[in-house]
This record gives sequence, structure tokens and C-alpha cells, in this order.
Amino acid sequence: MSDLLALGKWSLSQQPFSCLMETKFEKAEKGKVVLSLDVRDEFKQNYGAVHGGVISYMIDVGLAYAAASEIRDCVTSELKINYLRPAVGEKIVARAKSIHVGSRQVVCECQVFSRQAGEEMLVAIGIGTVNRVTDNKQN
Amino acid sequence: MSDLLALGKWSLSQQPFSCLMETKFEKAEKGKVVLSLDVRDEFKQNYGAVHGGVISYMIDVGLAYAAASEIRDCVTSELKINYLRPAVGEKIVARAKSIHVGSRQVVCECQVFSRQAGEEMLVAIGIGTVNRVTDNKQN
Amino acid sequence: MSDLLALGKWSLSQQPFSCLMETKFEKAEKGKVVLSLDVRDEFKQNYGAVHGGVISYMIDVGLAYAAASEIRDCVTSELKINYLRPAVGEKIVARAKSIHVGSRQVVCECQVFSRQAGEEMLVAIGIGTVNRVTDNKQN
Amino acid sequence: MSDLLALGKWSLSQQPFSCLMETKFEKAEKGKVVLSLDVRDEFKQNYGAVHGGVISYMIDVGLAYAAASEIRDCVTSELKINYLRPAVGEKIVARAKSIHVGSRQVVCECQVFSRQAGEEMLVAIGIGTVNRVTDNKQN
Repeated sequence: MSDLLALGKWSLSQQPFSCLMETKFEKAEKGKVVLSLDVRDEFKQNYGAVHGGVISYMIDVGLAYAAASEIRDCVTSELKINYLRPAVGEKIVARAKSIHVGSRQVVCECQVFSRQAGEEMLVAIGIGTVNRVTDNKQN
Repeated sequence: MSDLLALGKWSLSQQPFSCLMETKFEKAEKGKVVLSLDVRDEFKQNYGAVHGGVISYMIDVGLAYAAASEIRDCVTSELKINYLRPAVGEKIVARAKSIHVGSRQVVCECQVFSRQAGEEMLVAIGIGTVNRVTDNKQN
Repeated sequence: MSDLLALGKWSLSQQPFSCLMETKFEKAEKGKVVLSLDVRDEFKQNYGAVHGGVISYMIDVGLAYAAASEIRDCVTSELKINYLRPAVGEKIVARAKSIHVGSRQVVCECQVFSRQAGEEMLVAIGIGTVNRVTDNKQN
Repeated sequence: MSDLLALGKWSLSQQPFSCLMETKFEKAEKGKVVLSLDVRDEFKQNYGAVHGGVISYMIDVGLAYAAASEIRDCVTSELKINYLRPAVGEKIVARAKSIHVGSRQVVCECQVFSRQAGEEMLVAIGIGTVNRVTDNKQN
């Protein structure tokens, strides 16, 4: 297991909300991470798909860890999500990568897929800015 | 209790994820809703503030219900969030309103506050597009 | 004329693109600015409304000057626009204000109106992050 | 020249603002377009880079034509831009593609590059929603 993946798994285990969701850190390399979530019934919307708030959470963590793989301590400044399809399936997978690493912020993008019967469908895309934390200045 | 608030409470009770979060529907009138969340430790980030994914969930439901108060059946198409401050406190309150009601979509905005010792601080703002659901066409 | 307005007018006059557009700085106070544009035929789309690119330019300058009224030297990091209606009329007015002033960035919002026969219609809203420029670090 | 490229060039020639900017339609295939702009001094900011409003215009047209290559008549609903670097150089190139084609809207992304001395630098990325125009309903 790479150092970055070990670090990511440890960091995720320190987030109470990610423990509640039982999010898994699947892969990590500089500028690129994959996280996943086993879909529980309690993650759903009234019509059976995964709740948009769960998708937005996965984008939030995907963007943050893609940035953290570049610059370590950081905090999300802003993000945008386009929901493309209902997220139906037994697993949610977030694949995020850094697009630009600046001196004070990293811009990342995250694609979220739902996996059903072994097949992945793109259900949402997100893009956001993650700020380097230095000198107690976050934003 | 207004019909809209009763409808909102019932609708929220049908969302398994909102039941897991124990989100409360506080107020509803045409074009304007307020939802809240009692902060549990398991909603937090590693540094003690509420997790960004919880804030994004509150924006997702705020925007959707502000739109639903105008057009009933709808589905969120996209949203954007600016995180302004760490969300510290015992309660999260989302105040959302519609900005423009079109024939096929409603644009809404949502302000998220954290309440600590009776005082509210603005911690995030969101804006998004919610699509009318008609003829099985969502987006 | 306030010092901020004089400063804003001078700054705008130093932007070649704003000179091409003949944008006017109407009002400025700390955290709040108004800019306007007389609509020329060459600013239009094929169907007669003002081009979305002109609206996005007005949001870009509105956000930047609202931030500049708070922190002077700054550069836009990101912005989002929701187009609400075709912008028909003889004048475009951008009203922008700061929402949160942080140590490294200012989040602002901008409403864009088109004025026709004395009446103003909201045609677009924008929200964005403007970074303080310090030590040659922009983003 | 492909039919799509001819159609794109003709459509762009019908936009007065794109004529003012002298934007060029370089390439078009289903779901993918390239447009460019020769940088004139009057497109610049006070510090010599191309004005953010010009970049936002290029993203606006890039997204719209990527969608139009899929569904013809359409109108931009919303877009988001992350500015990554000052746009320095003699040419601006917008490369846009569709990400998801729905029954009522197309989500597209657009990368904007500045070309200087033959080398291209990514200066901004945009993502947005473009609505199908049907039955006089735009949004």
C-alpha cells in the first residue's frame, strides 16, 4: 500500500461523518484519488436512488483528497456539482484528480459513478477549489 | 401548520437519508423554506466543525424544497456551494428561497447558518437549478 | 464623488476591454458597486438579446470591483452564472456586493438587470470568489 | 469542411458580438468543438493579460456550440468558470465537449488555452448546462 493511500485511509478514519458513511479510500497517487461507498438503504431518496446529498458528500471528499494528495493540509473553498442521472446501484465510486496546483489553491475535478451489476454509470461531475492551509489562514 | 409545511414534513419523512440525518422541516411558504439539523458528533470533520458533506446535503435539500414549494415534483439539476467559515455549533439551519421560476426550471439560493449559543453565523451559500419533472423527463 | 467611485472609474479606464465595451462605473461604497453598459447592436446574440458573453463579462467586473472595494488588489478565482431570462433592453446594470471577506479571499454576488423603457428585469445572477493579491501570489 | 463546421461558422457569423470579437470556428464534430480568438490589445486587462470577461465569453460560446453540435437549438442555462492562470499570449483557444446529453439539457465542459510562441497553456475551465429549446420553452 502506498504511503499516500495509507495516509488517506488514516485521515478518512479521523472524520466522524465519513465513519458514519463507511466511506472507503480505494486508491491514491499524487493528484488522483478514488473513494467508494457501499449503498445502504438509508442513503436513498424517496424514489430509490441515492440521495443527492450523499453524492455531494462524495464530491466534497473526492475534491478534498485529490488536493490533499498534492498539498496535504487544505480546506475546500467552493465546489459545483452537475447531477447527470439518478444514482442507482449498490456502490458509489468517486474518482477525483487535480487540474491545477497553484501556490495557494488547487482546482480539482471529481466524477461520481454508480455501480450496478458490475457496470458503472457516470451520475454526477463536480469541480472545486481547495485552499492550502497555512499560518492559520484558510480563506 | 400550513399545508405546504405539512407536505414538506411528509415528503422529508419519505427520504431515508433525511431520516438518518434527522433533518427537520421548520418553515415553508411559497418560494421560501427553512430546514434544520441538530448537530451530532458523527456529522463532524476531523477538526470538530460540521463536515462539508453535511453542509452540501443541507444545501441540496434547501434548494430542492424551495423549488418544490413553487412547482411540486422536481429534481435538482446542478448546484454550487461557497464555504465561508467552519460550521461550529449545535445546530445547522438552511434558509432557501426561489429566485426565478421558469416554465421548466426554478433557480433557488440557500444560505446555511450554524447556531452556537443562540447566535447564528453564515457558513455557506449555495445556488442551484431544480428541474420540473414532467412526462418522465427530468433533465 | 466618493474616493472609492473615483478609484473605480480610474481602474476601469485602465482596462482596455472595459474601454472597448464602454462600461460605466455608477456607484461604489465599501462592499457594494454598480456598473452599467449601454447596449450596442454589436453586443447582441443572433436573436436580438444581449450575448451571454457580455452578461458574463458584466458579472466578472461586478464581482471583482465589489471585492476590490473591500481589499483593493485582487484577482477573480472562480465564478458561477445562472442565466434567468433573455437580456432585452437598452441598458445592462450589474449590482454586486461582498458576502464574506476572508483573510485571503472575498466571496461576492452580482445581479444583472436589463433595463427597457425604464423598467429593470433580473436577467442573471452570479457568485464568485476573488483572491487577495499579496506577495505575487494570486491563486 | 464538415456540415457541422459549416453550420457552426454560419451560426457564429449571425452573432453580432462574436463578429465584434472576430471569433473563429475551428473544428466541429458531434459533441466536440474548437473555437479561437486572435488576441487584440483591446481584449486585455490593465496588467496585460486577456480580460476575464473575454475568457468567460469564450467559455459561453464553447459550451453552447458543444451542445448545439448535439441538439441544435439551445440556450445556456448556467455555467461555472475556474480561472487557473493569467491568459497571456497571441491567441485564445476554447476546446469544448459534451459530457451528458439528456432529453431536455446537455452538460458540457470547456477548456480554455492561451497560445504563446506556439505553446498552449490551460488558463481556465468551465462547465455548464445548455437547455434544448422546444415549444418556445427555454428554461
